[in-house]
Amino acid sequence: MPRKLGIIAGGGTLPARLVRACRDAGRPVFVLALKDHCDAAALGSDVDQAWIRMGEAGTGIRLLHEAGVSDLVMAGGVDRPTIAGLRPDWRTARFFARLGFKALGDDSLLSAVTRELEAEGFCIVGVHDVLPDLSPETGILGRHTPDESARADIARAVEVVRALGALDVGQGAVVQQGIVLGVEAVEGTDRLLARCRALARPGPGGVLVKLCKPGQETRVDLPTVGPDTISNAAAAGLRGVAVHAGRSLLVDREATIAAADAAGLFLLAIDPEVAA
Amino acid sequence: MPRKLGIIAGGGTLPARLVRACRDAGRPVFVLALKDHCDAAALGSDVDQAWIRMGEAGTGIRLLHEAGVSDLVMAGGVDRPTIAGLRPDWRTARFFARLGFKALGDDSLLSAVTRELEAEGFCIVGVHDVLPDLSPETGILGRHTPDESARADIARAVEVVRALGALDVGQGAVVQQGIVLGVEAVEGTDRLLARCRALARPGPGGVLVKLCKPGQETRVDLPTVGPDTISNAAAAGLRGVAVHAGRSLLVDREATIAAADAAGLFLLAIDPEVAA
Repeated sequence: MPRKLGIIAGGGTLPARLVRACRDAGRPVFVLALKDHCDAAALGSDVDQAWIRMGEAGTGIRLLHEAGVSDLVMAGGVDRPTIAGLRPDWRTARFFARLGFKALGDDSLLSAVTRELEAEGFCIVGVHDVLPDLSPETGILGRHTPDESARADIARAVEVVRALGALDVGQGAVVQQGIVLGVEAVEGTDRLLARCRALARPGPGGVLVKLCKPGQETRVDLPTVGPDTISNAAAAGLRGVAVHAGRSLLVDREATIAAADAAGLFLLAIDPEVAA
Repeated sequence: MPRKLGIIAGGGTLPARLVRACRDAGRPVFVLALKDHCDAAALGSDVDQAWIRMGEAGTGIRLLHEAGVSDLVMAGGVDRPTIAGLRPDWRTARFFARLGFKALGDDSLLSAVTRELEAEGFCIVGVHDVLPDLSPETGILGRHTPDESARADIARAVEVVRALGALDVGQGAVVQQGIVLGVEAVEGTDRLLARCRALARPGPGGVLVKLCKPGQETRVDLPTVGPDTISNAAAAGLRGVAVHAGRSLLVDREATIAAADAAGLFLLAIDPEVAA
């Protein structure tokens, strides 16, 4: 019998895809879904599940133990909690008392959560451990290829995203003709792309680069790209998208590549150590 | 007779303020206004002036010589030109042939323009040389003061803006409760503030920090803050604004400070070497 997988489920379709992968592999699975984040319809009702608020860490840990989970994966988008919105239970409050509430503003929060769950005896695994196909290898993923000017824009964006990542700010930037049109902070990639649409200049379109932060906990919170990212990039007049090879997730690999091919965009997985 | 000042005039009220300062000081003045950028109404018709497109460098230099200008100041906002929009005259084309058109995507463009004008015998001066009051000294400029948490947000924003500035990306960032809400690229401060309004979190509001880029040509393109910046910052729920002491411009010092006082925002000029 394979080890039971617990899924701490945020937004998007990733939790449901993990559930499907477990079923296909005959692996038992339990979903701990986060209220206001997890999409109940996408998840479906036929999987063993429980729902908690983000502040209910104590209840969540108890439920995971009761379900007999050994491995644990965190998947799907989660807005950073606010102190006011958290309404922490005793366990959550103790966690933050030790960590300091200022950790809410810090990506080391995720590492601390990971350590806390490991101390509970769970083995934390990454989405790409369960769904290895989601994390692209280095190279051109679709039909279209970047020309020399697009490669220069990618190199410039890599430089900017790495500098921002080192400061724990964001994971993405858009560069067109050498000019940094936009830099991603908490607004997310979709809003970055939406504003770059208005900032685009005549001539060859820009590129979007998304990279994992240096030293980032790769078992959680990898940069994610899906068909929506591609259609938003196309709407913003971009020529292509470059993601971090081995350290990003294509939410739906086939659909994402097909969307890029259809829109005439290149889709590239890069090693920033080489591309920079 | 004081040396005649030439003003290469972009958008906003700064060119008109320079004209007024020259008049008050009895200094002769000539305005070379940039079409599609300079505001004819704000400038007024009673000052000696000529209008050129940005691509007409040859005509512009001839007009400045004919007007007998010795000192030259560049003032007011200018969108970065596109190759298509530039329609360069012979002199402009020669300039870019030497520099490479990719310089359009590079802030070294301004340094190159400065060098070119110096080679023509003009002495390039900064706005703050003509209007020293516009560049604030280190300290609290208005009635309100940042508390400890606001100072921590300022320090975090300084760190981010300096890193971005070193990469020649932008001059501003908004930080709230330690979280970088937004980072400025080409969209400008007003649009940065507009989107941060939607990204703001409950609890103490954020801060805007605007700094001069390290090694930036301080005679041109200093970060600028005015009453509009303050009202946009207030609308975004911010608690205050920090600008670069000695290396930024308060477009209208009294009105800007009055706006901050009225809105309950602190307005601070900082030395980033100390604040970081």
